[in-house]
Amino acid sequence: MNIHNITVIGVGLIGASFAKGIKDLNIKCHITGVDSDESSLQKAIELNVLDDYSMDIQKAVENADLILVSVPLGAMESIFTAIEPHIKQNTIITDVGSSKASVIQSAEKVFGRLPNGFVPGHPIAGKEKSGVSAAASDLFESHKVILTPTNMTSKKALDTVKALWESLGACVIEMSPEYHDDVFAATSHLPHLLAYGLVNLLNEHEELGNVFQYTAGGFRDFTRIASSDATMWKDICLNNQTAIVKWLKNYQQEIDLLIQLIESRESDQLYQLFKEAKTARDTHIVKKTD
Amino acid sequence: MNIHNITVIGVGLIGASFAKGIKDLNIKCHITGVDSDESSLQKAIELNVLDDYSMDIQKAVENADLILVSVPLGAMESIFTAIEPHIKQNTIITDVGSSKASVIQSAEKVFGRLPNGFVPGHPIAGKEKSGVSAAASDLFESHKVILTPTNMTSKKALDTVKALWESLGACVIEMSPEYHDDVFAATSHLPHLLAYGLVNLLNEHEELGNVFQYTAGGFRDFTRIASSDATMWKDICLNNQTAIVKWLKNYQQEIDLLIQLIESRESDQLYQLFKEAKTARDTHIVKKTD
Repeated sequence: MNIHNITVIGVGLIGASFAKGIKDLNIKCHITGVDSDESSLQKAIELNVLDDYSMDIQKAVENADLILVSVPLGAMESIFTAIEPHIKQNTIITDVGSSKASVIQSAEKVFGRLPNGFVPGHPIAGKEKSGVSAAASDLFESHKVILTPTNMTSKKALDTVKALWESLGACVIEMSPEYHDDVFAATSHLPHLLAYGLVNLLNEHEELGNVFQYTAGGFRDFTRIASSDATMWKDICLNNQTAIVKWLKNYQQEIDLLIQLIESRESDQLYQLFKEAKTARDTHIVKKTD
Repeated sequence: MNIHNITVIGVGLIGASFAKGIKDLNIKCHITGVDSDESSLQKAIELNVLDDYSMDIQKAVENADLILVSVPLGAMESIFTAIEPHIKQNTIITDVGSSKASVIQSAEKVFGRLPNGFVPGHPIAGKEKSGVSAAASDLFESHKVILTPTNMTSKKALDTVKALWESLGACVIEMSPEYHDDVFAATSHLPHLLAYGLVNLLNEHEELGNVFQYTAGGFRDFTRIASSDATMWKDICLNNQTAIVKWLKNYQQEIDLLIQLIESRESDQLYQLFKEAKTARDTHIVKKTD
């Protein structure tokens, strides 16, 4: 890899963990950070996450061989706009957004046509705590990173981004942006909305009062993802709107089925549905490591 | 308490943990177990969970001062039928069923009128593992036990059952059977069905294939309760049918709201909904110990 200068735009948990992971490899590579919050950048220097930082995005990207854009989905387009006039022709750009078609659309809009160095990505990793202080160089180890190259993406750019993630211990998977957005609407965006929806439905319920006092471990685990960042999830809803609405509607049909089986007391079919779900989860979820 | 002989019918996790807890108090009390599975009873003797057991329910209950019926909801009525001709007039009967109105109806049907010694109950405790081998005398410590006395329940019976659970470290709360069934339909039965429904919707999806491979910790926690026992949850659906259907329908309205906000790109309202749900959960769920 001829990557000497890496610039990380957005030094939160993901961006900082990426930077820290690369630094810990001890390869000759200079890592610069950019963030709107200077105290995060200072903290990153203290924690040896970055070599350098700049509050001036032009300076931070003009010598970059590779740029990781790790900002909220809602900020992607303005970052592309800010870097577009200043980057070198062959700079590789990759991102970490949870939806891919919308990021690709933003890039197309800003760059005119998609740059050959643009490799849309989505690392499937995170933890309860956010921000640079929570950064960990092993955050991506044994975790999946999805790359969704466009038909403009060069093989060299793709291979470079893939190799970087793999050097951090990640398992890189390629798929189309459309398949990505559909799968993650179903497996991630949908359950987040369902958890937010349940807490919202029961919160200070006018008929029942505070029912949270009667909940136990099952409810706590089910709703854990409803403690996620509200801005991030508002952005995801707006960026993956079509697929999310489709899966919410699919899920309503599933609830229709449950209502119908319970109302008509279909004992065997209820048992069968629960048993199959339990078996599927015990097989595919419990036994897998992620 | 003039309780010398306790009989536990159904020596699974809950029944066995109750028995073990009482035995560990070292009070003069003889505990007999009944179960359709003799090997569980033998195991219970080995583990010092019971003093005695019988495969003959008549013999097991005829001298009992207190009977704990800890069998699945679907077996409650047949147990009441089996014990009704043999119990003493003042025997206290309590149960551990997850729905209360249906258990009360079964008792009314079998006993003609509700016995004064009948104290319907529901301990809010459990763990991943089931069966007598998982029994723990501290299972109920600092956990809630709901009692839903009927207007026939004597104060003496209620006080005795309350004192027994409190001696195991539980926090006893009284409420009406109807309020119980409504609250637990909302806080427990609904999320269980939602988790089963999501796994069922995504299992071997004809369009997407095996998507479970792309899930991570959030999905695993959200669906943990979909690994619960299928028979138990089929029974709960049939026993708390009305309240469960009501809450499934309430939840569909919540999804309607989410769809509407996402389709019309109501950025502020989406943020507000997520933020309020997050705050409610962080306040009421994360900070509480259960």
